[in-house]
Amino acid sequence: MNAEIIAVGSELLTPFRQDTNSLYLTEKLNQLGVEVLFKNIVGDSREHLAEVTRIALARAGLVILMGGLGPTEDDLTREAVADALELPLVRDEAIVEALRKRFSKRGFKFTENNSKQADIISGATVLTNRNGTAPGQWITGSYDGNEKTIILLPGPPHELKPLFEEQCLERLREHLPPAFIASRVLKVAMLGESHCDDRIAPIYRRYPNVQTTILAYAGEIEIHLRARADSLEVAQQRVDKVAEKLEDELDEYVFSRQGESLEQIVGYYLQMRNATVAVAESCTGGLIGERITSVSGSSRYFLGGAMVYSNELKHKFADVPKALIAAHGAVSRQVAAALAEGIRKRCGATWGLAVTGVAGPSGGTEEKPVGLVFHALSNGESTEVVERKFPGDRERVRWWASQQALDMLRRKMM
Amino acid sequence: MNAEIIAVGSELLTPFRQDTNSLYLTEKLNQLGVEVLFKNIVGDSREHLAEVTRIALARAGLVILMGGLGPTEDDLTREAVADALELPLVRDEAIVEALRKRFSKRGFKFTENNSKQADIISGATVLTNRNGTAPGQWITGSYDGNEKTIILLPGPPHELKPLFEEQCLERLREHLPPAFIASRVLKVAMLGESHCDDRIAPIYRRYPNVQTTILAYAGEIEIHLRARADSLEVAQQRVDKVAEKLEDELDEYVFSRQGESLEQIVGYYLQMRNATVAVAESCTGGLIGERITSVSGSSRYFLGGAMVYSNELKHKFADVPKALIAAHGAVSRQVAAALAEGIRKRCGATWGLAVTGVAGPSGGTEEKPVGLVFHALSNGESTEVVERKFPGDRERVRWWASQQALDMLRRKMM
Repeated sequence: MNAEIIAVGSELLTPFRQDTNSLYLTEKLNQLGVEVLFKNIVGDSREHLAEVTRIALARAGLVILMGGLGPTEDDLTREAVADALELPLVRDEAIVEALRKRFSKRGFKFTENNSKQADIISGATVLTNRNGTAPGQWITGSYDGNEKTIILLPGPPHELKPLFEEQCLERLREHLPPAFIASRVLKVAMLGESHCDDRIAPIYRRYPNVQTTILAYAGEIEIHLRARADSLEVAQQRVDKVAEKLEDELDEYVFSRQGESLEQIVGYYLQMRNATVAVAESCTGGLIGERITSVSGSSRYFLGGAMVYSNELKHKFADVPKALIAAHGAVSRQVAAALAEGIRKRCGATWGLAVTGVAGPSGGTEEKPVGLVFHALSNGESTEVVERKFPGDRERVRWWASQQALDMLRRKMM
Repeated sequence: MNAEIIAVGSELLTPFRQDTNSLYLTEKLNQLGVEVLFKNIVGDSREHLAEVTRIALARAGLVILMGGLGPTEDDLTREAVADALELPLVRDEAIVEALRKRFSKRGFKFTENNSKQADIISGATVLTNRNGTAPGQWITGSYDGNEKTIILLPGPPHELKPLFEEQCLERLREHLPPAFIASRVLKVAMLGESHCDDRIAPIYRRYPNVQTTILAYAGEIEIHLRARADSLEVAQQRVDKVAEKLEDELDEYVFSRQGESLEQIVGYYLQMRNATVAVAESCTGGLIGERITSVSGSSRYFLGGAMVYSNELKHKFADVPKALIAAHGAVSRQVAAALAEGIRKRCGATWGLAVTGVAGPSGGTEEKPVGLVFHALSNGESTEVVERKFPGDRERVRWWASQQALDMLRRKMM
């Protein structure tokens, strides 16, 4: 079956708000073997909504509308879908009663406009919303001679998601031929997108029954694999086979096999080896520490460190000799190495990780241009320094630098 | 005039990729007085694209398609729009020649599939793309008896944006009645959304000719004001009048009047007062430093600081007495104050800013639950401590804590 999604709300037609529910819904639908063919974003106009619903019913077997189920005058999804289906709305007094109780229990005044949330399209199944006042609705019936299913869902994600999972997934599965779909995500660090694709395209192209999607971010590539088969075992085998071959090809560039983040993987390795890390950050200004500590439980392996933005503090917090900075400049291989070793010693950590560079947009010179970053990793016995020249703006340079630093640590512990 | 936007690409119908270009386009169109009535997301199917284009032409005066102009077999926007308009595609040999030159200049091999990027819909104006190979196209003509404009834009944002600004804005303005639209953004820190709206709704409701949009984020609210009038002066006056009244009501909660970020505002104040800041971060792990240094030129007022995740480092880097930690615990009013004063002294800064708390999800106790954070600000003479209990998950608690800390510093310098 194919699906069409309609996101409802005039705020979604402003420059400020984005429909994000449809990404969640698409994932759930794909897992059932349903493909999304069209997405629509429509304002709070009964006429527009009815028109878009009619068009969607003509071309998709499953139509899902999100939003516009609340109590205000702008909430017109029920009315519009009833128009499109040429069915009446019937007020369900039991729902009105439940709403009254809900309000009084919470000490709120029940105002009459709330009753419209109990207007049910004739023949629809009510989908109870345990996180909000507006219930969803499910209609399966004949439209232009074909069986169609229409689902009305509330817009707020914390209402939509549990409602869909608890009341729609099983119902949908009953309407669909059994689908067995397996998926895997590989993540790759610090490899160019086209270089990565050059290496893996000859492999994944040999397996047309595994759908491969490549998503590139700064310093990170995600390879999504998905396969469909007559049983989950066969689907999983297909996906795993391609994943294995891609891992063989990309080898140590692959850092995650089950969707974990780089921060998580670094944390796993540190814990596994009973090791700790301390950081000294110049141009990243705290980003590496922030990323490491975004993982719950990171206090087990992250001791802390210093943001050494000024030269004075490079000396004070990481014991970098002032003469070294004077001789080579703060952005240099030598200072990076001294920072890594200095912060390691000061904090008593297994590993010292340091970054110094020119994040831009100002501050670059011919010799030391914007984007030049030195990354250093020390364990007391030896210190490795990696020099990189990153493209992009300040935010991107800083992100790349944090990614390179975390990846150095990961590789040393592999 | 009303507009309809069509985002093209099968990747936009997966759970992984989102159309973001339309937010940018909507902002630009709104500034010209054009409202967006529908947005569509369609895969790389010639038939689907032609159908959606026909529907859009029937209901909007301006139809903008984004994406699907590249050289691959999946790039079918040109063909589909030609189908919808029943116009032929004509290959422009001058463009092919320019593409050949572009490729050879960069040392790339020109493959024949690239030529299709020179296929122009009969009668279209070519919109040169200086950041990519696929030119845009502009068609104005009669469709079903009404004048319509169709614009084809390349999908990558770094191609789309300059092309639209350099080659479409002026052309559009010529097609439109003069529109004078003024806008303002006020930003508010650390005030609840409903509390904020309770205070300002009675004001902005009195000015229906100024459109007010309220967007709430963690610890920050944006109030967008927009007005239309017969002259820019009148539009600006309308917006400024409402802005002024809202500022009077919200007073010191308003931190930004021209869209600046909290980090930028803190930076302005520090520079204005010739002051510097140093930070000691426990539960935020570097986030405050990262935010301050996200602003270019922050080295003028940010010295650095320490990530004091372990108790040991709270002592080592910020001179917090070990006995104080033993007596009150690391998450306490006393330790927060000692951190702020200690880091200020160590770094020789005007201000010392510190945070210690329980970010969760683990580590909470009855006495010190998840979300409890102490924020401290010291100038050597006095130290202010703010205790808060933030809602939400680890990421949210950390973000709130950084927001509270930056806002304390802002308020002290107001």
